[in-house]
Amino acid sequence: MRLGVDIGGTKTEAVAVDDSGAIVERLRLRTGFGHAAVAQTATDAITGVARLCEIPPDGFESIGIGIPGVVDPRSGQVSHAVNLGVDGLLLGDLIHERLGVEVRIDNDVTVAALGIYQHLAPGSPMGYLNLGTGLAAGVVVDGRPWRGARGGSGEIGHLPVDPGGELCRCGQRGCLETVASGSGIARQWPTDDPHPVRALFAAADTGDERAAAIRSRLAAGVASAVRILVLTVDVETVVIGGGLSHLGEPLLADIRQALAHWAAGSTFFASLDLPSRVELVPQGFPAAAVGAALNSGRDFALL
Amino acid sequence: MRLGVDIGGTKTEAVAVDDSGAIVERLRLRTGFGHAAVAQTATDAITGVARLCEIPPDGFESIGIGIPGVVDPRSGQVSHAVNLGVDGLLLGDLIHERLGVEVRIDNDVTVAALGIYQHLAPGSPMGYLNLGTGLAAGVVVDGRPWRGARGGSGEIGHLPVDPGGELCRCGQRGCLETVASGSGIARQWPTDDPHPVRALFAAADTGDERAAAIRSRLAAGVASAVRILVLTVDVETVVIGGGLSHLGEPLLADIRQALAHWAAGSTFFASLDLPSRVELVPQGFPAAAVGAALNSGRDFALL
Repeated sequence: MRLGVDIGGTKTEAVAVDDSGAIVERLRLRTGFGHAAVAQTATDAITGVARLCEIPPDGFESIGIGIPGVVDPRSGQVSHAVNLGVDGLLLGDLIHERLGVEVRIDNDVTVAALGIYQHLAPGSPMGYLNLGTGLAAGVVVDGRPWRGARGGSGEIGHLPVDPGGELCRCGQRGCLETVASGSGIARQWPTDDPHPVRALFAAADTGDERAAAIRSRLAAGVASAVRILVLTVDVETVVIGGGLSHLGEPLLADIRQALAHWAAGSTFFASLDLPSRVELVPQGFPAAAVGAALNSGRDFALL
Repeated sequence: MRLGVDIGGTKTEAVAVDDSGAIVERLRLRTGFGHAAVAQTATDAITGVARLCEIPPDGFESIGIGIPGVVDPRSGQVSHAVNLGVDGLLLGDLIHERLGVEVRIDNDVTVAALGIYQHLAPGSPMGYLNLGTGLAAGVVVDGRPWRGARGGSGEIGHLPVDPGGELCRCGQRGCLETVASGSGIARQWPTDDPHPVRALFAAADTGDERAAAIRSRLAAGVASAVRILVLTVDVETVVIGGGLSHLGEPLLADIRQALAHWAAGSTFFASLDLPSRVELVPQGFPAAAVGAALNSGRDFALL
């Protein structure tokens, strides 16, 4: 049995998976803010799942955690996780001190990509596009996450696609993230609605032109991200997940429409057959928690 | 001994390499146009190198060819090689009929990337950016070319980076290829000069503002391609080759300046340290011919 934890900006999801990768226990917690609270959330998640399984924390084959930010899997250090109030947290050491277990800590998008690859078993290179507060991608080849030379692969949210676009928080202009992410939508469509992107889609559906334009830029931005993944690394499929993917079919339809529109103007682009190569993460599947559990059993040397 | 042939738009380069990958013989020919002439060029190159080595064509351990266009390495069929007047040529079969040897045929950018990887031995993922008539990239990992799910990886010349840019021959607008390729320069700066891009650089150096603007867009386009390769797959280095790379240091300086300019406005971008991760192909090194020779000894099943 392996244990996986996905520490998100507001909630934390934890699972126990058996040798076949199937989920046998599942738990949800609110995520704390700041170093001490995030470490507490992580230990609560581990001990909580252990209790459900009636196994002590050190009785699992391995334990893995997925968390936003820049993560060094070797040292277990987490940096630049702004939404969690975490920078330079030695999460692995803290958990080891408290529970006496080794944990494998990795970036949440990387482990989500791994979890979905295991779930869908595509058998060919797969891209995962995470539409959360930001926009980032993961590429999985032969069941292994592609990390790149410096662990920085998949940061496509900071690829500019429009010299006349908005200034991005990264300092560049017209990055994909400025139009195709939760923070990009929030900036363009400020609202108190607890589901701001749903509110945007609803407004667009009732004829609000500004909402329709923002929604259309979102679809074009995601479609651009898909095009980048396919023309650069030629993944067979791009799976879309993250908070914005809860919009479901209306979002997928928008993205496919943008891709089909481009295909209508370009034989080359049409030959890529992109509308059929995009899909949504299965709703309700805790991809990052499952991926963290699978990731935890890996040999560091293999990466 | 392995034999490698690089069939280019105007000239064909062929080499024999020994087991260490060192070049032992080298030959240049003019490339013919159309199916019959291209097949003749290929057989002439093979028999010519064989004669230099005093080995019959079937005495080589393996023979490989790199050629522009869409290539199916399994069938040896070459398509869409517009500059060669070739579409649907079963080059492998033709050479086998004439010389009784099996040849491994592959895309020229793919084998060039492989040849440079072998030459530079970077030890980490490497990107190769080919600035020829078009713009395309190759990624090499652990000494193997990254092909992708459908063999279409590296087609980054057709990634749009400017919605207000020129219409590309692919039907999309603002593709990298419209500004950062030989054909892009030729469209913007028509000239009878046999070295059109050298003429452009010279005009820019003497104060021609239109030439300076085209040259600046070229540098920004190449810098964008480098950014795409690093933020998507995180290659450690990007090596720039192809016809435009013969411009040498002035081109490299322009590209590094564009990257440094972006870094000045973005801490995130600066952290990628891109100016130091870009280099030019060693001048005079027949990368694609050497790569074709190395590629020829490979097991198809490994790709």
